[in-house]
Amino acid sequence: MASGSPIHIPNPHVQGMTEDVLYHLALGTNSHDLPSMFGDLKFVCVGGSPRRMEKVALYMADALDIDIPTGMALNNIGHGKARYAIYKVGPVLAISHGMGRPSMSIMMHELFKLLHHAGCTGVTLFRVGTCGGLGLEPGSVVVTEEALSPLLQPSYDQIILGNVVSRPCVLDKDTANDLMGCASTEDEFATVKGKTMSADDFYEEQGRLDGALCNYTEDDKMAYLKRAHDLGVRNIEMEAVCFAALSHAVQLKGAVACVTLVDRLKGDQITSSAKDMEEWQMRPQKLVARYIRKNLGLPPKDMP
Amino acid sequence: MASGSPIHIPNPHVQGMTEDVLYHLALGTNSHDLPSMFGDLKFVCVGGSPRRMEKVALYMADALDIDIPTGMALNNIGHGKARYAIYKVGPVLAISHGMGRPSMSIMMHELFKLLHHAGCTGVTLFRVGTCGGLGLEPGSVVVTEEALSPLLQPSYDQIILGNVVSRPCVLDKDTANDLMGCASTEDEFATVKGKTMSADDFYEEQGRLDGALCNYTEDDKMAYLKRAHDLGVRNIEMEAVCFAALSHAVQLKGAVACVTLVDRLKGDQITSSAKDMEEWQMRPQKLVARYIRKNLGLPPKDMP
Repeated sequence: MASGSPIHIPNPHVQGMTEDVLYHLALGTNSHDLPSMFGDLKFVCVGGSPRRMEKVALYMADALDIDIPTGMALNNIGHGKARYAIYKVGPVLAISHGMGRPSMSIMMHELFKLLHHAGCTGVTLFRVGTCGGLGLEPGSVVVTEEALSPLLQPSYDQIILGNVVSRPCVLDKDTANDLMGCASTEDEFATVKGKTMSADDFYEEQGRLDGALCNYTEDDKMAYLKRAHDLGVRNIEMEAVCFAALSHAVQLKGAVACVTLVDRLKGDQITSSAKDMEEWQMRPQKLVARYIRKNLGLPPKDMP
Repeated sequence: MASGSPIHIPNPHVQGMTEDVLYHLALGTNSHDLPSMFGDLKFVCVGGSPRRMEKVALYMADALDIDIPTGMALNNIGHGKARYAIYKVGPVLAISHGMGRPSMSIMMHELFKLLHHAGCTGVTLFRVGTCGGLGLEPGSVVVTEEALSPLLQPSYDQIILGNVVSRPCVLDKDTANDLMGCASTEDEFATVKGKTMSADDFYEEQGRLDGALCNYTEDDKMAYLKRAHDLGVRNIEMEAVCFAALSHAVQLKGAVACVTLVDRLKGDQITSSAKDMEEWQMRPQKLVARYIRKNLGLPPKDMP
């Protein structure tokens, strides 16, 4: 993985900038030596929660035998000034993206420019997240084969200068298959491949009955969820369409693996124990850690 | 303000729930005594950044003469488990909403249910945020008179069960006017009333030239921003449409006050000094603190 293509930024204006302030990352081309800080990155893990991304970084340090002495903490590169949490362990960056595609899109734009300015090559992206499942035991991991909008179309729609612009939600099939190949029959959880629907809301757009607003019946909800399930949708979250469309637009390979916290065909509320959910939330990065070791040419390692 | 209407939750399903887990707030009806914790709330301030909302809470404590002894810190009610930062000082709640309308909508659904379960009455909401301005000196405060989508329509569109549902973005005119009335000619900044456009992205949907992707020219950008300016738009952010539509849907009064960090008619990058921006970001809550003191029947107080 030492070789690979540099990051392509399809915006001619960026080349002419004398300074590029990556405002929401609290980084910039003049204030930071981005090539020295980030030039060796090969893998980027993104996920919603800042706290969880710190855990992902610590897990990756363990997976890659990077010693963090007892009493030492990882440095949050954003120092609390950034809108996202940012951790680096060896060739792996772990960065939070908040909830929903607007929050993710800001992070993705600035991440892509960061990788470009740092001169990174051959980078692979992973979203490790949480979601609601459709017809799956809570705690299962879904690797996304296609990301769909709430209209159940593989399209990421934005309004740019007053016009609707649709981008295709393309995820690299090989990366998804390789990640699926990192699942083991000995895992205490199931890993399945399926389509992922991304909504712009947790309640109404996901057909939940328990939001502050709800103008539909349980039958309406079930009809919608079953229609999605019949199309191959196995989980619902809020960012995969954005992740797929934007990473495809800059020709970066990426994969999405999310753990289900609830079976939406059986209910809406997330009532599993905090202990169970803490453990479940580690599962997507288990697969990604195996993928990374394999791609770095390292032998398999038993990890909790 | 001791009287007022209880919070109306227009979802019949909520009444029948034996437990309501407000998952992203890390609160619940069975795990927490919500009426005792929150029943006396009269004002809720929401804003994007968790760190800034802690500052808002400390500022409100000072404004309301609520003593926080040196060495004591405010309690983040979410204890790091919630996806949002939550602080309470007397009758004021300060809560973060992250970036973009999906993240805000989750918080709003759960906030409305929290206020309902807690039995709150006569609550007024404020969004205190940051934004890009149109034709204004950076550091100016814009009080929103109408929130518009990137199509420049006063409409909040969601896809619910596969259908587009449009809700009107209605903000209470009296609250906006009263907040405008809290500005003083002695303030070191201008406060103006104007329309606010909410985009689902910081870069392309706001016509910036400095994102990772950009398929338009500077002339295209300026034509769009000038069209918005001609319609009365004075600032661009990412949440006002959601704030307006959802608070109107539950019949809660709300107002939006945001400080401009850049004049988008002159540039895209946010390059003001960190010190200036720290000070500017306090300005919206200056107005809100004056509003709250006035509505509590307290005399004006000199505040930094």
